[in-house]
Amino acid sequence: MAGRLRAAGYEVTVFTRRQETAADLLGSGATWADSPAAVAAVADVVFVMVGYPADVRQVVLGEEGVLAGSRPGMIVVDHTTSSPELAVAMAAAAQRQGVASLDAPVSGGDRGAREGTLTVMVGGDDAARQAVAPCWQATAKTVVACGGPGTGQQTKLTNQVAIAAGMVAMCEALVYASRAGLDLETTLRAISSGAAGSWSLSNLAPRILAGDFQPGFFVEHFVKDMRLALEECRRLGISLPGLTLAESLYARLVDQGHGRLGTQALILALADIDDLPLPRPAGISDPA
Amino acid sequence: MAGRLRAAGYEVTVFTRRQETAADLLGSGATWADSPAAVAAVADVVFVMVGYPADVRQVVLGEEGVLAGSRPGMIVVDHTTSSPELAVAMAAAAQRQGVASLDAPVSGGDRGAREGTLTVMVGGDDAARQAVAPCWQATAKTVVACGGPGTGQQTKLTNQVAIAAGMVAMCEALVYASRAGLDLETTLRAISSGAAGSWSLSNLAPRILAGDFQPGFFVEHFVKDMRLALEECRRLGISLPGLTLAESLYARLVDQGHGRLGTQALILALADIDDLPLPRPAGISDPA
Repeated sequence: MAGRLRAAGYEVTVFTRRQETAADLLGSGATWADSPAAVAAVADVVFVMVGYPADVRQVVLGEEGVLAGSRPGMIVVDHTTSSPELAVAMAAAAQRQGVASLDAPVSGGDRGAREGTLTVMVGGDDAARQAVAPCWQATAKTVVACGGPGTGQQTKLTNQVAIAAGMVAMCEALVYASRAGLDLETTLRAISSGAAGSWSLSNLAPRILAGDFQPGFFVEHFVKDMRLALEECRRLGISLPGLTLAESLYARLVDQGHGRLGTQALILALADIDDLPLPRPAGISDPA
Repeated sequence: MAGRLRAAGYEVTVFTRRQETAADLLGSGATWADSPAAVAAVADVVFVMVGYPADVRQVVLGEEGVLAGSRPGMIVVDHTTSSPELAVAMAAAAQRQGVASLDAPVSGGDRGAREGTLTVMVGGDDAARQAVAPCWQATAKTVVACGGPGTGQQTKLTNQVAIAAGMVAMCEALVYASRAGLDLETTLRAISSGAAGSWSLSNLAPRILAGDFQPGFFVEHFVKDMRLALEECRRLGISLPGLTLAESLYARLVDQGHGRLGTQALILALADIDDLPLPRPAGISDPA
């Protein structure tokens, strides 16, 4: 995303926890800064994209964080999928310093980031969102204004809730069809365009049939997102059994050492791959 | 489907358990027969579409069933979503009488049937399938040859397995978004075209938002199909927790008296409709 901003002609100042991550960006003319605060000291808009809510908290609210270096009128945009509550807290902390904070998680994966076709789900101040809009022309295809602080995160978590049991559905259909002895390509052709159709059935099921378990989206990142959603469920007093089931199956997958495979690896938590007429994915060891 | 065959110029002889069901068809020039056997006595191809496997068994294998009136060279096509094992048994029984039996369940719903845009999933003899193909030009958009006897049913059950946990996913996303206070139309717009996308999210979620719980597909019929799939799972020695969960939630819905609503009514098994900012569907009574 930073590379696309740089390519679009923006001056980019960058801090990454491991500097080598930024090598290509620095080669394209971006400037290095030694901390998030040092980025904020020179930038009009600071984009944050890290891992867990604790990382977001440190990068934005920490001693050397973005707000520690901010000037009034600055905008901080958190692209991390993170906690809605933290987004609300950051917006309040930012406002006390005359800074606008937007929660703006994205969907579209690595590919969407490389190609500039992400969807950005934005929670927070309208004027700040409009001020950042020209930057998103370089990184996103769709920008959705979701409401006040935290609603971008809630919308992204809704997206992950819809994916969770949907992945179970897709993988169970393949397990069923395999064990029933059906030709899997024919079966996908028969069911993909009707009421059973989904993005995962059209895009991830064919990868499973090809033995391709490489990540579009890492299992371990999806587990993080589902746990954020489950925490919110507890706070909201709701119980989502499909999400709970999906999280438990994916947690099993992480236990099996598959956290760095793509989310389509869920099928490995539902069936022994050696019982299915499917190519064994690279990196899955022989049975004992 | 019979109406479309008649409109396409085929001579149609019809038996229905309640004769009034066939009134329109008889008005369009179809001929009444007093039993499935009496239909078979005059037809080259007999299409069966009933409710449960026990009904199929009676209509095809019973005393006054199709095979009791069949002549060698006839073809019987079962369009019911039914048991794969029964399909295999019927094909064998038919063959002993020189008759071909195809299992040919459909997807596409009432609307696909009215408009002639069904998908037919066919298991059984190739020559018989090719002989029936001209008839399906009047009723279907897509005919998929799935393999030998029973594979049409297995493919349709795979379709239902993919729908089952997928419906849980769609409804849980709406419950989550509602309780998180999001604007639901905006949320659907943000998530429907990406990795969370599905036929149910695009087609059934908007009906829930509109308070429209009318059936495209009846809850009670879907429960029947899921139970057929679960029986097959036991026979095949596989465990599909998402399907099991979906069946238990839909069974609760039937207990609540909602068996004749559409499958999108699943949301009523996950949340009290009065806790969600959604219109209460017609026919759902006030809380006590």
